Amino acid sequence: MERQLFHRLLKPEEALKLILEHFNPRPTGVELVHISEAHGRVLAEHVASPIDVPPFDRATMDGYAVRSIDVEDASEISPVELKLIGKVEAGQRPNIEVVERTCVEVATGAPVPAGADSVVMVEYTSMRDGKVLVYRSTYPGENIAFVGTDVVKGEIILRRCTRLSYREIALLASVGVDKVPVYSRPRVGIIATGNELVEPGSSLDIGKIYNSNTYMLNAACIEEGCVTKIYGICPDDEKVLRELVEKAVKENDIVLITGGTSAGTSDITYRVLGKLGNVLIHGLLIKPGKPTVIADVDGKPVIGLPGYPNSALLVFDLIVRPLIRRMLCSEDKCEEAEAILVKKIIGAQGRRAYIPAIIVERNGKLLAYPLEAPQGSISPVVNADGYIIVPEDREFIDEGEKVKIILERRERPDLIVIGSHDYTLDKILTELAEEGYKIRQVVTGSMGAIIAVSRGIADLGGIHIIDEETGKYNEPIIRKLGIEDKVILVKGWKRLQGIIVQKGNPKNIKSIEDFLRPDVKIVNRNKGSGTRHLLDLYLKQIAQKQGIPFQELVRKIRGYTYEVKTHTAVAAAIAQGKADAGIGIKQAAELYNLDFIPLTYEEYDIIINRESIKKKAVQRLLEILQNYNRDLF
Amino acid sequence: MERQLFHRLLKPEEALKLILEHFNPRPTGVELVHISEAHGRVLAEHVASPIDVPPFDRATMDGYAVRSIDVEDASEISPVELKLIGKVEAGQRPNIEVVERTCVEVATGAPVPAGADSVVMVEYTSMRDGKVLVYRSTYPGENIAFVGTDVVKGEIILRRCTRLSYREIALLASVGVDKVPVYSRPRVGIIATGNELVEPGSSLDIGKIYNSNTYMLNAACIEEGCVTKIYGICPDDEKVLRELVEKAVKENDIVLITGGTSAGTSDITYRVLGKLGNVLIHGLLIKPGKPTVIADVDGKPVIGLPGYPNSALLVFDLIVRPLIRRMLCSEDKCEEAEAILVKKIIGAQGRRAYIPAIIVERNGKLLAYPLEAPQGSISPVVNADGYIIVPEDREFIDEGEKVKIILERRERPDLIVIGSHDYTLDKILTELAEEGYKIRQVVTGSMGAIIAVSRGIADLGGIHIIDEETGKYNEPIIRKLGIEDKVILVKGWKRLQGIIVQKGNPKNIKSIEDFLRPDVKIVNRNKGSGTRHLLDLYLKQIAQKQGIPFQELVRKIRGYTYEVKTHTAVAAAIAQGKADAGIGIKQAAELYNLDFIPLTYEEYDIIINRESIKKKAVQRLLEILQNYNRDLF
Repeated sequence: MERQLFHRLLKPEEALKLILEHFNPRPTGVELVHISEAHGRVLAEHVASPIDVPPFDRATMDGYAVRSIDVEDASEISPVELKLIGKVEAGQRPNIEVVERTCVEVATGAPVPAGADSVVMVEYTSMRDGKVLVYRSTYPGENIAFVGTDVVKGEIILRRCTRLSYREIALLASVGVDKVPVYSRPRVGIIATGNELVEPGSSLDIGKIYNSNTYMLNAACIEEGCVTKIYGICPDDEKVLRELVEKAVKENDIVLITGGTSAGTSDITYRVLGKLGNVLIHGLLIKPGKPTVIADVDGKPVIGLPGYPNSALLVFDLIVRPLIRRMLCSEDKCEEAEAILVKKIIGAQGRRAYIPAIIVERNGKLLAYPLEAPQGSISPVVNADGYIIVPEDREFIDEGEKVKIILERRERPDLIVIGSHDYTLDKILTELAEEGYKIRQVVTGSMGAIIAVSRGIADLGGIHIIDEETGKYNEPIIRKLGIEDKVILVKGWKRLQGIIVQKGNPKNIKSIEDFLRPDVKIVNRNKGSGTRHLLDLYLKQIAQKQGIPFQELVRKIRGYTYEVKTHTAVAAAIAQGKADAGIGIKQAAELYNLDFIPLTYEEYDIIINRESIKKKAVQRLLEILQNYNRDLF
Repeated sequence: MERQLFHRLLKPEEALKLILEHFNPRPTGVELVHISEAHGRVLAEHVASPIDVPPFDRATMDGYAVRSIDVEDASEISPVELKLIGKVEAGQRPNIEVVERTCVEVATGAPVPAGADSVVMVEYTSMRDGKVLVYRSTYPGENIAFVGTDVVKGEIILRRCTRLSYREIALLASVGVDKVPVYSRPRVGIIATGNELVEPGSSLDIGKIYNSNTYMLNAACIEEGCVTKIYGICPDDEKVLRELVEKAVKENDIVLITGGTSAGTSDITYRVLGKLGNVLIHGLLIKPGKPTVIADVDGKPVIGLPGYPNSALLVFDLIVRPLIRRMLCSEDKCEEAEAILVKKIIGAQGRRAYIPAIIVERNGKLLAYPLEAPQGSISPVVNADGYIIVPEDREFIDEGEKVKIILERRERPDLIVIGSHDYTLDKILTELAEEGYKIRQVVTGSMGAIIAVSRGIADLGGIHIIDEETGKYNEPIIRKLGIEDKVILVKGWKRLQGIIVQKGNPKNIKSIEDFLRPDVKIVNRNKGSGTRHLLDLYLKQIAQKQGIPFQELVRKIRGYTYEVKTHTAVAAAIAQGKADAGIGIKQAAELYNLDFIPLTYEEYDIIINRESIKKKAVQRLLEILQNYNRDLF
């Protein structure tokens, strides 16, 4: 095989084309399986029906098999009398023929005896002296399912490459097929590399992280219909990795190697694969996912994926999944679609960016909501439906523009909740979840709720935003933004905001002014959260008092840029000694047994997208909400 | 337990409510499984994160950990010089602190050492004499993912009742959870009853049919996450059934018994269940599905389903699936929705009718296309996405009306083809299928194509309809119906229509007139097919010549009401001696090695819904079509 390493970064479609041409991935084998074990497997041959369905002229009603010509003049007033000459049950072979002015009793499902061309329903007959009185005429063919009218013998009933659900299995069984040839499941070997990795279930030293890629890829491959083998964690050691790859290549059809999170670790994979086979591709022109290595080892694809789960997943989606699908006879149609972007996003300067996104359909249009998070975050992996694609040459894409998206996840949650975090809301959502509603929840802060709910991404979200002028909560911002026609504001509950400090308040913090002390380190909330808004309001007053610009003031505060997303996270950071103080609600302080200095009551309300109101999950949530708070609307 | 048999037929929602209240179905147990085996399982407890993610302040770029205050004035022109005091790799614990005017080299993923509040990217630095020159200022927090910013220790990351996909498994692994409590799979025992049943794989005597329900239900239960046990076919014998049910109840959480196709067989199930336990429900007010029996045997639900696969599936969908879902902690939300009916349907006179339907979304609206077929047909089971509900009090529902539907199947095929059957089209579709496109094909005849394609149900379909006035094919009907704005007519190919007769033509059939002979039995095509249209055109001419009404004429033709759906079916019926003659195309006669009397050439064309033109599968089909026929459009 010729060496054809590309010395430039490839676009993912170039890379995919190249490896599809190179490996020409096809099903790896055919197995004959019984239909009781065929669910989810992929047909390896066209299946022709060996029989007609129905296999005989079948009575579709309980009644009497008659000649329509004999009962032509039958009516309620002048019934026709027929001689009953026999009976056929379902499963019986009829050994009798219907001749002039006779009939045969037939059960539903029974074969219609020769001579008869219709079945008169038992409801339109009566018995008298062993004779049958027929009160209605029939037309030829009435209440008979003729042989072969459903499926004809020899007809192709299922095509090669069909994935078998219970529907196709019902069809196979009904034509008498008990065993079907299906394609073998592709075997995928999974190796994780990186000195910083430890296995889930063990304890975590500083600097280490858990190996999540192996289990994510394992499950994703199983979902695609593969058989997987996990080879554990390989240290950043060429010799060990080499042996492991050789073993995995022998035992599998595809081998996946996830890199460490350090930029250097992919080099080890690259060197090992270069020695064991031919490296075809080294680097993709995408963000994330650049450090990808694809090699041919003994004719099998070995793919080195980047180390962060979201990056590894992207390369899996763009490269590995299409490869696997070819091995199961399924064209990867790479669900590209167009959506309307609801929030501005930034490009990746010359690389194509794939930004995890929640994708929602509203009124027949797709909307895409970017889930921006620091590199290596796991939460977008859980919350995304797919990706927004930012072309190589775009610096940014503005809200309202059309964007290309890849839709990866098909299942829709019953409820999408985006907004500020709150314990009461959490409890209500947990109650809904326990009733079986599937909930997607993204914690963003109040402004996230405003954007996501008003634009139709989320069904609802919690907000608590104070109006600087009036001191009123929530209602003013909705009016100012002019989104009253988009959202409904449902009154929620009051929460006590304050300063959360260590138990016993060892730093003797008394007010927000103390945040400026050099011995105090705070933990802050994310931008766009109501709590952040509240802190900044206090800080602006202090800045004004001190006569210095706000930006200068906050630079003096240690930890002002240490942002976490929930009240719990603020409390946890303080409980764990990472910070001395932070703004949060009383419940969070109590949860972690911390001290609390009250500042103000705030109003936490729910906004609901007007079009979501009729949803069952929203209705149910409002019902539950009634128990917490009776003066809704 | 009190006996509470209802002596009237129950509506399905009454029945479901009753059995949910009676059995209060809940998960049957909890198992602890490793995340490598947890795919598809349902969480039995809320999972709180045992760690922060990231678990330490992590560098998100390769570069140098610095104090932002030290590089405040750094610029391209006047870089700031820092002393390099160490290096931290990913996975290493940093044993060093960044103090004034020093820096530490950090790799992506490495912990940021104490003292530093930001990381300057390596691109904005250079080395000189072992010193680092920094050309850009940083802001506090730059290129650092702070501990707990993604997931906070103690935070509920997944709620009880979540079904685990690779996304949730990635999350579990990344917080170090290796084993999770999941609910046990419900155990379902499946018994088939009916003397007329034989197992797939064996030969079929007259009157017998294959047991398809067992394998359909088996696969459907597996799809829902159950463990199944198949108890085979039980004859219509109370004693045998009783023993089998007793055994199955011991070994399972739910037992399903499918009845025979005869109306009487459900009585045996009823009697057996009455003796073994309490019959709660006997009969549902639906069509199909009336002969349903639901009993409590030793506290477990035992459900007798009707015998026809489509009826059994309906009762599974309405009753059994919700029951199973409760056992896996999932509310059955019974995907009811509204759709626009595209074809008139008939109700079930006092019972609620559930009509299998193809359900398609067009421009944000759901359209429902009823799949009408004789009772006991298997093809609707394969082709339906769900059901159209016809209320008890409706005699019919007209096309264009809004109807309630149940959406059962979520996957969408890449192409829906509804219309006349043709071998060339079959070959093209097979080619598409082999490329991995998922195709749903329903054979209805030409008028089916006209309805289904113009109304947006099907993407395309084949037609061959002659215009009585002009003798032209296809184009006139589209013009007359005024659907040029809805569909595009793509020229197809010519086919030779004729009379298909037995090999050697033993009945000496020479023309359509011979169909009137008493010794000739024909097989006809379905109403709405172009071939039926053609035959009727000839017959109308004969009726005119003979001076008798058309309806009278056709009553003289034996087999005029014996309707099959494809050309192949016509040929097969003749080859198998079920008929002497029929109208069909030459290819069908050849396929079955039959004689053929040419009548006329007809034009078989494809109509495509205008909105479907841009679909990838349609584009590909048009490409393939080019190889068969070069003068398109």
